[in-house]
Amino acid sequence: MGNGEFDLIARIRARAGTRDDIVLGIGDDAALLAPPPGKQLVVTADTLNDGVHFPHGTPAADIGWKALAVNLSDLAAMGADAAWCTLSLSLPQSDAAWIDGFLDGFLALAGEHGIALVGGDTTRGPLSLSVTAMGFVEVGRALRRDGARVGDDVWVTGTLGDAAGALALLDRDPAPALRARLDRPAPRVDAGRGLIGIATACVDVSDGLLADLGHIAARSGVGARVDIEALPASDDLCIRFDDVARLALQAGGGDDYELCFTAPGDVRARIDELASRLGLRITCIGRIVAGEGVHPVRSDGQAWSPPRRGYDHFTGA
Amino acid sequence: MGNGEFDLIARIRARAGTRDDIVLGIGDDAALLAPPPGKQLVVTADTLNDGVHFPHGTPAADIGWKALAVNLSDLAAMGADAAWCTLSLSLPQSDAAWIDGFLDGFLALAGEHGIALVGGDTTRGPLSLSVTAMGFVEVGRALRRDGARVGDDVWVTGTLGDAAGALALLDRDPAPALRARLDRPAPRVDAGRGLIGIATACVDVSDGLLADLGHIAARSGVGARVDIEALPASDDLCIRFDDVARLALQAGGGDDYELCFTAPGDVRARIDELASRLGLRITCIGRIVAGEGVHPVRSDGQAWSPPRRGYDHFTGA
Repeated sequence: MGNGEFDLIARIRARAGTRDDIVLGIGDDAALLAPPPGKQLVVTADTLNDGVHFPHGTPAADIGWKALAVNLSDLAAMGADAAWCTLSLSLPQSDAAWIDGFLDGFLALAGEHGIALVGGDTTRGPLSLSVTAMGFVEVGRALRRDGARVGDDVWVTGTLGDAAGALALLDRDPAPALRARLDRPAPRVDAGRGLIGIATACVDVSDGLLADLGHIAARSGVGARVDIEALPASDDLCIRFDDVARLALQAGGGDDYELCFTAPGDVRARIDELASRLGLRITCIGRIVAGEGVHPVRSDGQAWSPPRRGYDHFTGA
Repeated sequence: MGNGEFDLIARIRARAGTRDDIVLGIGDDAALLAPPPGKQLVVTADTLNDGVHFPHGTPAADIGWKALAVNLSDLAAMGADAAWCTLSLSLPQSDAAWIDGFLDGFLALAGEHGIALVGGDTTRGPLSLSVTAMGFVEVGRALRRDGARVGDDVWVTGTLGDAAGALALLDRDPAPALRARLDRPAPRVDAGRGLIGIATACVDVSDGLLADLGHIAARSGVGARVDIEALPASDDLCIRFDDVARLALQAGGGDDYELCFTAPGDVRARIDELASRLGLRITCIGRIVAGEGVHPVRSDGQAWSPPRRGYDHFTGA
């Protein structure tokens, strides 16, 4: 990006924030960081591309928020404390106003979680954001996908399907509350930390509940039964979609950035207590069973499968 | 990328390699890593975009090599040992053969430097590669940009201008040796480690020697005088370009991925010894002076400036 790149980097550097464990931040060939003794480093990387991971024309601040949120959600799923991140930003042209807006969103969320931007680069190219986020967890305490045991309950935080609902209604004016779930997901970092010592396995819900719970099942060598009618829904989702469409959005919609986890029955009270402390709905939605795969069932015991017609069932409300 | 993404991730995971300090690699929400006690973490992130950082049509294996090389070059400039990396890969469509080629190049270089791929993602989008590389250095020993002192010598590893020469000749069949410098730069990780305790400041040459030395000068609060005719050139570059064009490529061409560093005069013998041990040319090209800015001069003492006509001076050889 030539001189434009250095201008953009200067803008970013001036606002990147700091932490006591940053020896040298943006401005050298690499950042120098002091990891806390006796902990494990947790590292994840996720990219957002224009028109693929956010609708074309999404405000810069929302893109900034989401680029960090999807990475914090992965740290949350491991039960990690967030510490540092890098940002690789490709922009069609050097655009200081866009960068400022982007940083407004990115740094607002970074501030909430105490994570500092320590490096990265800006390049010329189609709009794309790659973030690598780093955090820490006590040795041997991380939440993983491979610890679910037969008989464990299956739980999920928050509500499901809101972001997918917003996407389905994009051309028809989605409710602001749904659109906010699409543009500004709230990574469940506090919930993830609170689940250490409680959850046996955990995954973040980014590709749809059934698909992501499938990762827990596969890695743990177990199956999962999901009570499809127990999936938590927001009022807005219930108002805007009929039951058939709503269940499909909740089960498979994606972009939820909630945590799905498993836990033995004897910690139910601790989970309720965590939910109460965080002011966050946490709902039991099924059970880990012997076998393999994820099996959504209705309350009458019949297998549920997504409607073939897709999600095009709007109530018009 | 839907199911295609999981197929690609499985292909990558099967070949990602491992290290004893990786507790959990690709396949969970994030990697779990065990940093060595008592060291500082060194982190850098760099992106390559199709048609911007490599010519459109570059073989997948060369893109893989270069995506990692530019990041290893930043670790080298800090004097760090390479340990782990993440890769965010955007591809227009799921293409297993392309991925296999990409991994051939990426993992060949990773193997040379003992760095393991621990996470990342694959997304649909214009061809783009974002890598975050992590390494380690003894506390307080990293090579930084801000330590140059008046009277220090200025040095550079290898030869300059080859990659820029290849780019200038792209439509006219560059010499294979020049093209190899563009497509498969050799990050100077061993040289960087060897310079700990010798160099007072260091930067990797990615944007052109004079520009990158300018970062050392600015961060150190000094100036630099460069003997422009001392800049090291390969035989191929000398054959393919006249002196005017060659000097411009060497001074400002970019994409060299050599190390430019400063060191006091009393360590010259140690630098020669390092060069000999590594089989790597290391050339004294100037001196740190009071003031600011980078001042290229000819052997007759006259200031040198790049030709206005640009780099279009081919010998036709």
